[in-house]
Amino acid sequence: MRLRNKPWAKPLIDANPQYVVTEPEKFAGKWQERFEKEQPIFVEVGTGKGRFIVEMAEKYPDRNFIGLEMQTVAVGIALKKQIDAKLPNLQLVCANGSGLTEFFNEGEVSGIYLNFSDPWPKKRNEKRRLTYKTFLESYENVLNGDGRIEFKTDNRGLFEYSLCSMNEFGMHFDGVWLDLHDSEEAKENVMTEYEEKFSQKGQPIYKLTAHF
Amino acid sequence: MRLRNKPWAKPLIDANPQYVVTEPEKFAGKWQERFEKEQPIFVEVGTGKGRFIVEMAEKYPDRNFIGLEMQTVAVGIALKKQIDAKLPNLQLVCANGSGLTEFFNEGEVSGIYLNFSDPWPKKRNEKRRLTYKTFLESYENVLNGDGRIEFKTDNRGLFEYSLCSMNEFGMHFDGVWLDLHDSEEAKENVMTEYEEKFSQKGQPIYKLTAHF
Repeated sequence: MRLRNKPWAKPLIDANPQYVVTEPEKFAGKWQERFEKEQPIFVEVGTGKGRFIVEMAEKYPDRNFIGLEMQTVAVGIALKKQIDAKLPNLQLVCANGSGLTEFFNEGEVSGIYLNFSDPWPKKRNEKRRLTYKTFLESYENVLNGDGRIEFKTDNRGLFEYSLCSMNEFGMHFDGVWLDLHDSEEAKENVMTEYEEKFSQKGQPIYKLTAHF
Repeated sequence: MRLRNKPWAKPLIDANPQYVVTEPEKFAGKWQERFEKEQPIFVEVGTGKGRFIVEMAEKYPDRNFIGLEMQTVAVGIALKKQIDAKLPNLQLVCANGSGLTEFFNEGEVSGIYLNFSDPWPKKRNEKRRLTYKTFLESYENVLNGDGRIEFKTDNRGLFEYSLCSMNEFGMHFDGVWLDLHDSEEAKENVMTEYEEKFSQKGQPIYKLTAHF
């Protein structure tokens, strides 16, 4: 979702280069340098206000996390959380997800999270959906052999589309949940801001985990 | 679902051999003999009380339909509908779906319908689910190259399972609907008895169309 501009966001990002990367292509192949420990890297494409990636980094200290987000304001809000949390295993990146293969070397990533991304419901915008085949190609490129994609959405049309698109691409499904919050999987689920708000209305959250 | 026994069912079936086949293996490779016209054959596995298959046969006179059902009482109820309708493109079969490859020759079938089949929720009963791999193998065997499976259910667990099972088997999804009755696809949808009753409660009906 588009956020209202906040004049403090850009200066805050500029003042915290230890947490935010604005030229990610410079770190392709050397992301481990950005972290305290060398450990598997997990990337969220479209990290929004950052609640998910911050909680994940807290919950899994043995993994390194990168939150990719193109809206400066959203990165600013996520950065505020990281300034409080000071997590050594979390980096934020202010950039567009379509550049993934320029930001990471082949096999550099162990997992990708796609959370509540824009559904782009009109057929003419199919190419912008984060589960369109060109995006899947880029995920396949940067993920290592065991790497998984975890995809969550409340948008029925996008989920239907993504099941077909990922199946057509030849991806293997590890698990499908058609009402995530009413399942065993909910126990381990880390919610995004949007997810909590939306699920309180009683509508189902869909989840798909798959690998290449 | 299990139906209460009806003493009239078996005699009615015996009195109508023109509509009901009780030894389907005898017709493997020669099902077209049972119909007025030679045209593509579509099979419903678990035809229940027959509303779906009777309406389909009325709606698509250029296809031949076979309704497979193992419960004698259900076949009897379906047969009553066919005795009224006298459809030249509909045959009922009183037999278990697990024998599919004995009932049909390779490639003899153009489409298979699986409607609201038993979810068998316990893991130890996985093999009984109509989308378990051994069933998928038998569908692949009897379907011709373009043949499709159309699967509907209201059972979330069974649908989640079936998406994974059919994906794992290497099947190609043609379409997924997570709320069939609230979609464009609803216009062409023919409902089963169970489907109408269930969907009136406002719960979603799931549908998947796929081919090998």
